[in-house]
Amino acid sequence: MKTVTTIKEVRDAVKAWRRAGETVGLVPTMGFLHEGHASLIKKAVADNDHVVVSTFVNPTQFGPNEDLDSYPRDEARDAALCEEMGADLMFRPDPKEMYTDAKVSVVVKDMNEHLCGVSRPVHFHGVCTVVTKLFNIVTPDKAYFGQKDAQQLAIIRKMVEDLNSPVEIVGCPIVREADGLAKSSRNTYLLPEEREAALCLSRAIFYGQDHIKAGMPAEKLLSVMTDIVADEPLAKIEYIKAVDVLTMEDVDVIDRPVLVAMAVYIGRTRLIDNFSFNPADKAI
Amino acid sequence: MKTVTTIKEVRDAVKAWRRAGETVGLVPTMGFLHEGHASLIKKAVADNDHVVVSTFVNPTQFGPNEDLDSYPRDEARDAALCEEMGADLMFRPDPKEMYTDAKVSVVVKDMNEHLCGVSRPVHFHGVCTVVTKLFNIVTPDKAYFGQKDAQQLAIIRKMVEDLNSPVEIVGCPIVREADGLAKSSRNTYLLPEEREAALCLSRAIFYGQDHIKAGMPAEKLLSVMTDIVADEPLAKIEYIKAVDVLTMEDVDVIDRPVLVAMAVYIGRTRLIDNFSFNPADKAI
Repeated sequence: MKTVTTIKEVRDAVKAWRRAGETVGLVPTMGFLHEGHASLIKKAVADNDHVVVSTFVNPTQFGPNEDLDSYPRDEARDAALCEEMGADLMFRPDPKEMYTDAKVSVVVKDMNEHLCGVSRPVHFHGVCTVVTKLFNIVTPDKAYFGQKDAQQLAIIRKMVEDLNSPVEIVGCPIVREADGLAKSSRNTYLLPEEREAALCLSRAIFYGQDHIKAGMPAEKLLSVMTDIVADEPLAKIEYIKAVDVLTMEDVDVIDRPVLVAMAVYIGRTRLIDNFSFNPADKAI
Repeated sequence: MKTVTTIKEVRDAVKAWRRAGETVGLVPTMGFLHEGHASLIKKAVADNDHVVVSTFVNPTQFGPNEDLDSYPRDEARDAALCEEMGADLMFRPDPKEMYTDAKVSVVVKDMNEHLCGVSRPVHFHGVCTVVTKLFNIVTPDKAYFGQKDAQQLAIIRKMVEDLNSPVEIVGCPIVREADGLAKSSRNTYLLPEEREAALCLSRAIFYGQDHIKAGMPAEKLLSVMTDIVADEPLAKIEYIKAVDVLTMEDVDVIDRPVLVAMAVYIGRTRLIDNFSFNPADKAI
């Protein structure tokens, strides 16, 4: 496992692999890797001859009042995890290596006007742009994204369709702590009492998963899930919604594949969680 | 030479060439090919093992009141020229093959707020998006663009830098009719008296080229060029400008590489022409 910081080093490594006819997987992350990322890397290593993990904390996907500066970073720990999981390359460029007075970028419409896009208006443009850049730098056969960032995954899938990116997108399930909390680099922000309080998200998610299968109508489901979270004094709900998995538009009746997603502040830390449900999968 | 209409056919052909370790050149056009395009294809054939010419009339780079519907098309003649020039594939997709309820696109800022971008506000977004798609579909080693569309070429070069597109951009000189008129698919719109009147563009361009070398100041140069065009009763000037070749911003003093460019209506037909000048190239 080698850590590289320049685009040229990545391209040279990939070129050598390609010359040998070998396949390449990409796991785009922002570093501070946890077991969720580990599951992506593991899957990528199983699927491909070589794996590149990018751990670039991409400034363009943070809004002006967001946590870019405080976002947790630990290069040594990230490198150790990449090594342990069997990745070949960790790509950790300086922002100047990635952006120099950029004029051209990738943008998304409609799908970013829901869920996280409401409070984070530039976020998904930044995600689409950096992922396009990483695709062009690494030219992977497959790229791996966590279902935890469900709206991101849906937008990336649509981006690949709309821009004809020659990359197969692989979505991987949410990885949770033993007590249910979805793994996130931002969990590190939580004070001990907040860490406990944060369980209201997964409690609501598990309730929703159980009762959507049982046929509970969307309005009732969201209302109970909202109550579960609102019962926690440290929690402040940004949204709890059921949306169409493709368009991200609200659904009233669960008659198609839906994403049930939430963003909740625990103290000053913004956490997200979600589950998907396809009524066609339900055994009758 | 084979004409194909689906993305899959292009990908299958390129995959076979890649498997054989062969290089691929792309010439993106909107069809109705003329000697300017022929010069691009010729260069691409000389540089690469295989050449794909796209002749897709891209709707997203036309504004609502522009000439999308009347834009000239001649598939048989285009195919014959591609064959004659030694191209391998002509890619001529239906708009439905290229766009299905697209949400993600490529946009450019600043550089599109000058020259043609002023009157054509969506044009360069459409160009960046379709060129990104074609790059992703064909995955060429090199792509060939005419210097006639100088602002487009500058924006594409910046796009490749900003999105790290793994494609080398090759700019090719303007090809002119014997009497000086720059070759353009839109020349076909000109009535006989307009065809004669259209020579005012190249007349002004040739004047500018001669006198910029001799050190004529930008203001005087543009003023005389404007007079030359304005003397033609059928001509209506949209712009005649000297801009920085990289930023497309107006320059007052020619102390760096400049693009001197114009857009002029001859009757209802909008024509463009330009030349570049680098003061560093001037023999002292």
